[in-house]
Amino acid sequence: MSQLTGPVPDTVFPRLGWVDDLVVPALREAVGALPAAEARVAGYHRGWTEADGAPVESTPRRGKAVRPALTLLSALAVGGSARDALPGAVAVELVHDFTLLHDDVIDGDALRRHRPAAWSVFGTSAAVLAGDALLVAAMRAVSDVPCRSAAAVAELVGALMELVEGQSADVAFEEAPAVSVPQYLGMAGGKTGSLMGCACALGGVLAGADGERVGGLREFGRRLGVAFQCADDVLGIWGRSRRSGKPVGSDLAARKKSLPVVAALAGEGAAARELRALYASPHPLAEQEVVVARELVERAGGREAAEEEARRQLAEALRALSYARPSADVYRQLQEIAWAMVRRDA
Amino acid sequence: MSQLTGPVPDTVFPRLGWVDDLVVPALREAVGALPAAEARVAGYHRGWTEADGAPVESTPRRGKAVRPALTLLSALAVGGSARDALPGAVAVELVHDFTLLHDDVIDGDALRRHRPAAWSVFGTSAAVLAGDALLVAAMRAVSDVPCRSAAAVAELVGALMELVEGQSADVAFEEAPAVSVPQYLGMAGGKTGSLMGCACALGGVLAGADGERVGGLREFGRRLGVAFQCADDVLGIWGRSRRSGKPVGSDLAARKKSLPVVAALAGEGAAARELRALYASPHPLAEQEVVVARELVERAGGREAAEEEARRQLAEALRALSYARPSADVYRQLQEIAWAMVRRDA
Repeated sequence: MSQLTGPVPDTVFPRLGWVDDLVVPALREAVGALPAAEARVAGYHRGWTEADGAPVESTPRRGKAVRPALTLLSALAVGGSARDALPGAVAVELVHDFTLLHDDVIDGDALRRHRPAAWSVFGTSAAVLAGDALLVAAMRAVSDVPCRSAAAVAELVGALMELVEGQSADVAFEEAPAVSVPQYLGMAGGKTGSLMGCACALGGVLAGADGERVGGLREFGRRLGVAFQCADDVLGIWGRSRRSGKPVGSDLAARKKSLPVVAALAGEGAAARELRALYASPHPLAEQEVVVARELVERAGGREAAEEEARRQLAEALRALSYARPSADVYRQLQEIAWAMVRRDA
Repeated sequence: MSQLTGPVPDTVFPRLGWVDDLVVPALREAVGALPAAEARVAGYHRGWTEADGAPVESTPRRGKAVRPALTLLSALAVGGSARDALPGAVAVELVHDFTLLHDDVIDGDALRRHRPAAWSVFGTSAAVLAGDALLVAAMRAVSDVPCRSAAAVAELVGALMELVEGQSADVAFEEAPAVSVPQYLGMAGGKTGSLMGCACALGGVLAGADGERVGGLREFGRRLGVAFQCADDVLGIWGRSRRSGKPVGSDLAARKKSLPVVAALAGEGAAARELRALYASPHPLAEQEVVVARELVERAGGREAAEEEARRQLAEALRALSYARPSADVYRQLQEIAWAMVRRDA
């Protein structure tokens, strides 16, 4: 892998259309069961409807729900059926939407998935309440499983607690004078790794896998999540566009402590010193300063460090996956998804 | 019971000090296990600490955590031990705090428990995230129970979904041109009844009671919650002070559709007509208009209707309690709490 942000043919995700065929109807049912106001906010947030509730005309790209795909493939990896794991797939996607809705309120981000964020359309109150509703719906999805619900609930609750810790650390980083790379990785492990780890582990749990295989799946997902976050941080500065649908450069403008910046700020050379001076200002960076900062982060080695970390985490993820003893075919599919998640820039 | 808001000797709650002795250390442990920032917001919100984290000097009044008391007494009512029900008591109190933190964000209320609301001290983001953390901690409390965790989780998840529905309805009422008394009761059943019903049901579930007894406890708590909400709405207009720690008259100033207002607006006489005209204004009511509105609500029969509804719900609650076949001693204790919750005004 030469360039994390280099163009990669988008061949993996369309082949996951069968995941959508299973998950989307179940997700629509779960969202449809929410109170009307929360269902409307969630439907808009997911890109199903416009702000006024009208269905979105264009067909969304298929196979983009990576967490449900990880859950269903993880179940297959340990010899289970995708259908058994469906409640887990629904739960992790609902939790994902809960985090996005609340994160955008918390960060004040006005764009999400290339559209105005839900809070900016429906108001903060509506976004908070819709997020709460989605979190409860996720809990209901796993607590309704006929058997294995106790293990599934425990898996989800553990991940949620780590998620909150990661989000808390992310917010704390904004005020922190200095953040180390290990601190960053701990935050990313909570904020992004915990839910992907849960997505994979739930597939194993709901397929009835033993603790060792579930542990392998959890670690695979967790490391993959961290690798994904490292790569997303790189895209947030140098990508042509960004998976999250947020504008490129906004992280720098907000002086966010993403991994390339954290690594660069810890450097010793002239570029690192200049960057520290620029980041010491309490104000958002102006457009020209963003250009300068991007250059400084690269010269101070921040980009290389982040790309290297993404590769390292990805390698660890695939090593952990082997502990789950997946069938060769499913291993290859999970590996392809993992590569695509860390490499692609569309 | 002649007057819902008449002075009642505050003799019941101090006798529940043993509830605090069990619950407060467990609550402190649960809150202490949160990330530091969320623990600080939650500690302030509970009245344990000042905004800067310093311990609050004055000793808070004991025995005020009514939901945990209901849980522990419900366990005793069906022959179980209070200690078995402790995780349920902790969970419902954590959920209660979650709802208060998010409600104050959603409603923009600046006062809570006679102090500045957490969001106004720490910011909206911190209050949202602390609420999320408390909700997850509540789920953890019940999912960690050695056995019976599946039933306990299902009980809590069901209540949470109703809670979200009630909160959603409450928000929708603000824009609704007219709200009927049955609609109000449905909202109050979700917003207040569901968690009190859950508090009681969890006591039964964790004590291993059968479905009929758990159902009786749930209905008792649910009706009691609605009765409490009706009485609190009366206090919100005519009380000397108010349990929630919000200023008296603020409901009217915000043209909130509390039960006395809902009942009065549905009336036919001159007072109801005048009140409808006053409430048709899109602006908050001025101080003099609040005085006029209070008078109109009373003359249109809104106060009497709300007090009557509270009494009716309380009677239904106590009837449902008998289905749980509690011991005579515990029945008397629960009855005293119920009376005190609906009658007292301090």
